[in-house]
Parts: sequence; C-alpha cells; structure tokens
Amino acid sequence: MTGATGFVGRQTLGPLRDRSFEIHAIARRPQSGTAVTWHAVDLLDASQLDRIVSEVGATHLLHLAWYAVHGSYWRSPENLRWVEAGSRLVRAFRDAGGSRAVIAGTCAEYDWNSGLCREDVTPIRPQSLYGVTKDALHRVVTAYGAEVGMSVAWGRIFFSFGPHEDPGRLVASVIRSLLAGAPAAVTEGSQARDFLHVADVGSAFAALVDSDVEGPVNIASGEARPVREIVKLIGDIVERPDLLRFGALPTPAGEPPVVAAAVGRLCEEVGWRPQRTLAAGLTETVDWWRGAEEQSRRVDRRCRS
Amino acid sequence: MTGATGFVGRQTLGPLRDRSFEIHAIARRPQSGTAVTWHAVDLLDASQLDRIVSEVGATHLLHLAWYAVHGSYWRSPENLRWVEAGSRLVRAFRDAGGSRAVIAGTCAEYDWNSGLCREDVTPIRPQSLYGVTKDALHRVVTAYGAEVGMSVAWGRIFFSFGPHEDPGRLVASVIRSLLAGAPAAVTEGSQARDFLHVADVGSAFAALVDSDVEGPVNIASGEARPVREIVKLIGDIVERPDLLRFGALPTPAGEPPVVAAAVGRLCEEVGWRPQRTLAAGLTETVDWWRGAEEQSRRVDRRCRS
Repeated sequence: MTGATGFVGRQTLGPLRDRSFEIHAIARRPQSGTAVTWHAVDLLDASQLDRIVSEVGATHLLHLAWYAVHGSYWRSPENLRWVEAGSRLVRAFRDAGGSRAVIAGTCAEYDWNSGLCREDVTPIRPQSLYGVTKDALHRVVTAYGAEVGMSVAWGRIFFSFGPHEDPGRLVASVIRSLLAGAPAAVTEGSQARDFLHVADVGSAFAALVDSDVEGPVNIASGEARPVREIVKLIGDIVERPDLLRFGALPTPAGEPPVVAAAVGRLCEEVGWRPQRTLAAGLTETVDWWRGAEEQSRRVDRRCRS
Repeated sequence: MTGATGFVGRQTLGPLRDRSFEIHAIARRPQSGTAVTWHAVDLLDASQLDRIVSEVGATHLLHLAWYAVHGSYWRSPENLRWVEAGSRLVRAFRDAGGSRAVIAGTCAEYDWNSGLCREDVTPIRPQSLYGVTKDALHRVVTAYGAEVGMSVAWGRIFFSFGPHEDPGRLVASVIRSLLAGAPAAVTEGSQARDFLHVADVGSAFAALVDSDVEGPVNIASGEARPVREIVKLIGDIVERPDLLRFGALPTPAGEPPVVAAAVGRLCEEVGWRPQRTLAAGLTETVDWWRGAEEQSRRVDRRCRS
C-alpha cells in the first residue's frame, strides 16, 4: 500500500485490517501503528521502490500516493513524476508476483460537462495536468494488466471531506471559520457535487481491493448535492448559520453545474454502500475539527507556559 | 536527440545538419560521425538521463528512442519503461531551459477502422500496449507543454522501409527473399497502407523540429497503396516477380483494410514533401540490400579463409 499516511490512506488501514489483509505500507515518513508493517521509502526513488516491492512480494497493491498539495496539484509538473513512479511501481509489483492492483484515479478524468459521470459511457476529457496524468497512468496500467494477465481496478475519487483535510478546502475551511466565530465566505453554491466522508472513501477502497471487479469504478455516494446545501448543513451543525456569506466569493468561470457519480459498479459489483449520511459525516467532521482545535490550543498554552 | 543510432534516427542526422543544427546525440552505443557530438547514455537510467540533459542544455529535443524489437514491441512490458523515460526526459529538458520538444508517435495510436487518419478528427483508439503507451506519453507531454509554456510536436510515423530495416518486416523480407532467389510468401495484400522511405521520415522529422508547428503531425506520404502493389513493385525492381506467392500467408483476422494518412499538416503547415516516389524509394532500398548482402558475403568469405 502506498499513500498510507495520506488523507484517504489513513482511513483505509482499518477497513483493510477488518478484511484480514496483512498490510505493508510504504511511506516517506512511516508512522507507528498496530497491524501494519511500515517501510520508509521514497516512491520517487526508483531503486528504493524496486527494492521494497521485491522484498514485500505482495499479492495485492493499493496505490494511493500522488502529489496532492492543495492549490498546486492541479497544475504542478510534479504530476509527471507520479505517472513515472506509478508505472514503475506496477511493473515492479507484477515482476514480484503480484496479482491484483487497485489504483486511485479521479473524477477529474471525466468530461465535467457531462453531469452524471458513468464509467463506461462518459467521455474522458480531463482539463488539468492532474487529470491528464491520472488518466494516462490509467490507460498504461490497464493495457499492461491486460497484456500480462494482471487484475487492475481504478477507483475514481469524487469529492471528499473529513479528518485531516487540507484547511484550504471547502468543507474544512467553512467548519474552521464557523468554529472560530468568523464569517465564512462562499460562492452562491448552486453547483452540485458528490461529496463523501473520507472514512467511507477508505472503506470503499478496501472493498474494491477485496473484490474481483476490474476497470474504472467511481468512489462516491451516488448523490450529488448543491454546495449551498452542504454549507448550510455545516452551519446548522455548528449552530452558526448566521456566519455564512453566500455569494461573497464569485463562482469561477466555467464551473460545471453538476458533477455527479453513477455508483452502480461500486454498489452492485463491489457490493459497497456508504456507512454514513452526508449529515452524519459532516457532524463527525465538525467534532473532529473541534477536537483538533482544542488540542492545538492546549499545545499552544503549553508552549507559552 | 535520442534514438540517433536507430532506423529513423540515423536518417535524421543529415537533414538536421543541413538545417544547421548543432547535434548532441545520446545513445547507449554512440557511433563516430562528423558534426555530431555523441554521448554514451542509457536513457532508462534516470540519473544518467538527468545529468546529460542538464549538461547539454539543448534548445530543441528530438526524442525518437523507444523499445523497437520487431515482433515483440507491440506487446512488451518494456513499453512502460519508455513512457517513464520519455516523461522524465521531457521534464529534464524543460528544467534545463529547453523550448521545443518533438517526439515520435505512431499511427497505431489511431482507430484503424477509420481508414483515413487525420490528426484533429480521427478517434484515438490504440489496440496494442505499444500504441497505448505512445498515446499516454503524448497526452502527458502535451498537457505538460501547455502548462509550462513549452512548444511540443508529436510526429506520428506510419509505415516505413529502407536501409537497416529489420529483416523480419515486410519490405525487407520480400527484398531479401527475391535477392536470394527464394520464393516470398505474402498475404493477398489487398490492405492499403501508407509507406514512406525512412530517409524521407528522417527528413520530415528534421523539418518538423525546425518548424513552429505544435501538436500531432502525421509523418507519411499521403498516399496509401495496397500492399500487393508495393510487393509487385519490388518484384519488378529485382526482376523476379515470378517468386512472389500472394496468398501464401493468411491475412490476419481483424487486419484493417486501409490505414491512410492525411498529410495536410505536414505539407502545408510544416512545408515538407517526400523527396522520392515509392518506386524510387524501393529501388534505393533494393540497391542498399544488394550492397549489404554483398558486404556480408565478403565478410563471410574473409572469415572462412
């Protein structure tokens, strides 16, 4: 498993353990944790990558790692390094006897003018370097898998939120503003998106790894909601709807009105369903940020005293 | 320049020199040659690649190298290594200040059921790992070029023949059989293909490098001919049409009837036209094989004596 210390990865460890996988996690900065064997590896270093993959000799690969710095990942040249590393990783995995690879893709591979994104129908027309590079790796790995007889699934993540989210992203930034008693500037929010709590994203990936389903699979709730509705829910949960400033941010030009996900493959073929409603997921997330803020205040007080 | 010792690359050196380029060629086994600075580099070794690209600091990149072993290149996992190397090469080139990259693509990226392949219209639907990986690199490099402001052109090579062709390929194998006085088994040959002498392919790439044209550009003659006609021409040139055995080989299932190239971009935008007719190109090639066979017989006699 790669990316195990990341936003999605940390939520996938538990569900994988629950499914009795023996987990080897490779990361630049391994963590301590029960029932996971950690390996300190920089995936962008080819020789380190080759060595560890050959040493572990895994049956399954779950590749979640990618360049993911908020604000810059859409356009960064770093995306190319992750195509290169992903291709090399999959080759090394196969050479070491691996039989099933599951890799994280993105809804940004789809043509967002399509509204409802379905794996087998919706045109692939990524508009960002991030989307193009993810899609390119998907094409390479799929053709390679077919050639060498390796099972490959590609989990296209839609919109997610939850613990450890980058504070600059929508859900995290609104929650943090409201918890701080500050106004939250948002767009009119008429655009609809499929949001899923990141713990459900992690659980879906574990289910996908544990299945035989091949090809692209949307990782989403199946229910796109207007951003306005999501933000209002946060206002209600924090009990500060008065602080929401709809329309204070302009809706970016070209923002697609609807990015919805068909989840037939995920529900029926993988047999997975979300474990929490949007409201429950947002409530958990508000609680987590409350805890995180309190902890950071405690650390702050300790440092000052 | 990469691939300078290859089938196409060796034919590109002269035309690049004629256009006053200062040529730095990187190859695993450099050759001696005038007006070319050779560098012994294994492109699949990332650190060697990074070092030489940074040292040379070229303004233009012509990337022709790829895995090209006849018979196995369509399906080999080696194709993945060349996606990885190509992506890394283009990044390193840009980081070293490069401004224009021209890379060899293939007609195998197109949907071959389309008949006439036009860069801006014909669907991309590669049916082989080779075609998929070339196309993936094209997508990555194009999006990267747009992001960082680098000029990128992608030359899609159709069918080629000429000196140093792999003896297992159509034109070379027919010529060699006839020169040896042996029957040449071929298909019925009704399928039409766009064939171009490799010296013209090299000259077209030099013109493309020397232009400002961006995006995919077909490298072809613009005239698809039935394979039967091409083989008959060889029979006439060698004066052994009696040795041709049309239909002795079965036409492979799914063989597309026509793979033709639109050459509007190459002719009008790049301003290049083939320098020889098909008959002239085949005659040159027969002469070259005659010379090569004689030389090999001489070597053979010398070894025996």
